[in-house]
Amino acid sequence: MLDRIELKPIGIVKTKAVGKEVTDRSNISQIVLHQILAEALDGIEEFSHLFVLFWMHEISKEESKKLKAHPRGRSNMPLLGIFATRTPYRPNPIGLTLVEVLKVEDNTITVRGLDAVNGTPILDIKPFDYWDIAENARVPDWWMKLEKEKTRAH
Amino acid sequence: MLDRIELKPIGIVKTKAVGKEVTDRSNISQIVLHQILAEALDGIEEFSHLFVLFWMHEISKEESKKLKAHPRGRSNMPLLGIFATRTPYRPNPIGLTLVEVLKVEDNTITVRGLDAVNGTPILDIKPFDYWDIAENARVPDWWMKLEKEKTRAH
Repeated sequence: MLDRIELKPIGIVKTKAVGKEVTDRSNISQIVLHQILAEALDGIEEFSHLFVLFWMHEISKEESKKLKAHPRGRSNMPLLGIFATRTPYRPNPIGLTLVEVLKVEDNTITVRGLDAVNGTPILDIKPFDYWDIAENARVPDWWMKLEKEKTRAH
Repeated sequence: MLDRIELKPIGIVKTKAVGKEVTDRSNISQIVLHQILAEALDGIEEFSHLFVLFWMHEISKEESKKLKAHPRGRSNMPLLGIFATRTPYRPNPIGLTLVEVLKVEDNTITVRGLDAVNGTPILDIKPFDYWDIAENARVPDWWMKLEKEKTRAH
């Protein structure tokens, strides 16, 4: 099996959000790609939504070794395996967020809903399509409970 | 900006599919994690669907430098920037696929719908929830046209 995999960021997140405010779904960010990749965006404006894959660079090696977490760090929520949550503390701290496209211009995409802080390295961008929807998906009770609080339930 | 990012696979895909047959949505695979990560799956069985992030290890360095592609390699489809498609030819060839959970046992998840060949390194697993759905998402005409052919339109 492959032992190590090496990635290179394709660009960076620019946003005024630097802390917890990134979890606000109305947050607007710019995804600024390396100039050489600008033409790799041709046609992306025809999609209303994208998945952004980013590297959560603020997670330490120690934090990425955790195997269990409470959703959103809430001790009144069950202690779960990290793969049953969207916690940033995971072996490969890759973030995955669905965002709305507001504007595409040259090497920059302006999006709404990206929960990545200013300066976050971007790994990939994928257009959202109907293969990405699970109809009638089942989620746990704890998820529904957090959802009622109107915050990201990860 | 970060120059290079190093990942370690968390496990591997086991499936009978080794070629184009992986694009069949009914394909069943096993995701086998490193034994030490087994407890990081606790609670994942409460979700019906997961996103699997995997490393498309068969893509060469040369192939990952492409900036343009025809969806599904079809020359009668528009030539697009690779970020407007789900082509495996991308700077960081990370695959992202929504799968259905069939069974979770120890360090192994049996899933339906994973389009990754046997031996593919797994990077991350994320539970699918309602924040991952874009209601009324807009997709291009070419996507709808391919979709009518009942195959993956990437």
